[in-house]
Amino acid sequence: MGTDSPDEKWSTAEEEIMQATYRTLLESGYVGLTISGIADELGKSNAVLYYHYGSREGLLVAFLDFIADQRKSMIKTESTQDPKADLDCVIEKLLPLQPDADQQQFQEVLVKLRSQGVTNEAVREQFTRIDERIATTIRNIIQRGIDNGTFRDVDSTQVAEHILAMVNGGRYGYVTTDRETTPSAARVSLSSYIDSELRRNT
Amino acid sequence: MGTDSPDEKWSTAEEEIMQATYRTLLESGYVGLTISGIADELGKSNAVLYYHYGSREGLLVAFLDFIADQRKSMIKTESTQDPKADLDCVIEKLLPLQPDADQQQFQEVLVKLRSQGVTNEAVREQFTRIDERIATTIRNIIQRGIDNGTFRDVDSTQVAEHILAMVNGGRYGYVTTDRETTPSAARVSLSSYIDSELRRNT
Repeated sequence: MGTDSPDEKWSTAEEEIMQATYRTLLESGYVGLTISGIADELGKSNAVLYYHYGSREGLLVAFLDFIADQRKSMIKTESTQDPKADLDCVIEKLLPLQPDADQQQFQEVLVKLRSQGVTNEAVREQFTRIDERIATTIRNIIQRGIDNGTFRDVDSTQVAEHILAMVNGGRYGYVTTDRETTPSAARVSLSSYIDSELRRNT
Repeated sequence: MGTDSPDEKWSTAEEEIMQATYRTLLESGYVGLTISGIADELGKSNAVLYYHYGSREGLLVAFLDFIADQRKSMIKTESTQDPKADLDCVIEKLLPLQPDADQQQFQEVLVKLRSQGVTNEAVREQFTRIDERIATTIRNIIQRGIDNGTFRDVDSTQVAEHILAMVNGGRYGYVTTDRETTPSAARVSLSSYIDSELRRNT
């Protein structure tokens, strides 16, 4: 996770809190994510955090909102005239062929948090938003490609859901198993899928 | 999770412990999964569990081994002469089109446990085995289909990894978001993928 602001809606103070939350998650995991742990990491008092977020739960929801915004700006693509390149670019950001240490750490934190969504409604809502946004971004790129004649006239929603499931499954497999070739295998297979699904028969 | 023995290697006593572990997970989640909680559920003393498994960790690994065996017998297919039907059958078991309450509960427990694999080596090893077995089962069915002329001569490993990633991503999305159409969208798209990837051009 970089230090760039993912969105102008986040003040510098809030962003510092979010970065401290991320570091606390990395160091102590979800169970160790407490208001006082984050306050220690931040070098401020608990009161500041309670003032902003009310509770650990409130802070967690704000953090996921921050992640969702960051992800949104990460996968935001300039509308180039090359939808195929845009699609490749988004996929590389979501499922890097060779994840570096930061990317891997970020995925690990996300998987830990996301599993809380099984029982925590507020967490589930945030991941619903995150997946919706990704699906929409991919669908829009595909639609642009159909409109400008780059892609075949496919069901853009279906293809977008397919890519999203592959990306989620590939990342999930990668951080929860020792099958280290998972992301590259998923990427190779995804490329071949996109090619055969979207390529126009010329 | 049914009450059938997943494998002859499990004694009735062990199986009762595993069923009690499953019920404890459902009721109390991963954090609440303690030796004394399971002993209560089982109506036996803690000593019995410590005798068999040594620790909470040992019991958890045994439970995942049990799950892996159960899953293995679940997706074991009779080698019929119809690899396409075998493949559909395995996929329906892994990613049911309309999961019932038991199937959903089982997936929720698996996602919770699997996220522990990010930091817990023993858990990660078990999920590595689970994913390996599924990939092998799918690959073997595809290979059978290639050999008997039902399927095109594809890279069976690549197609198997694609299906595994889709299945994992579809289930994961389903239990961690409110996007309720996720399993059916993934299934529709997977059917269309299998059809276009494996169908022979006759």
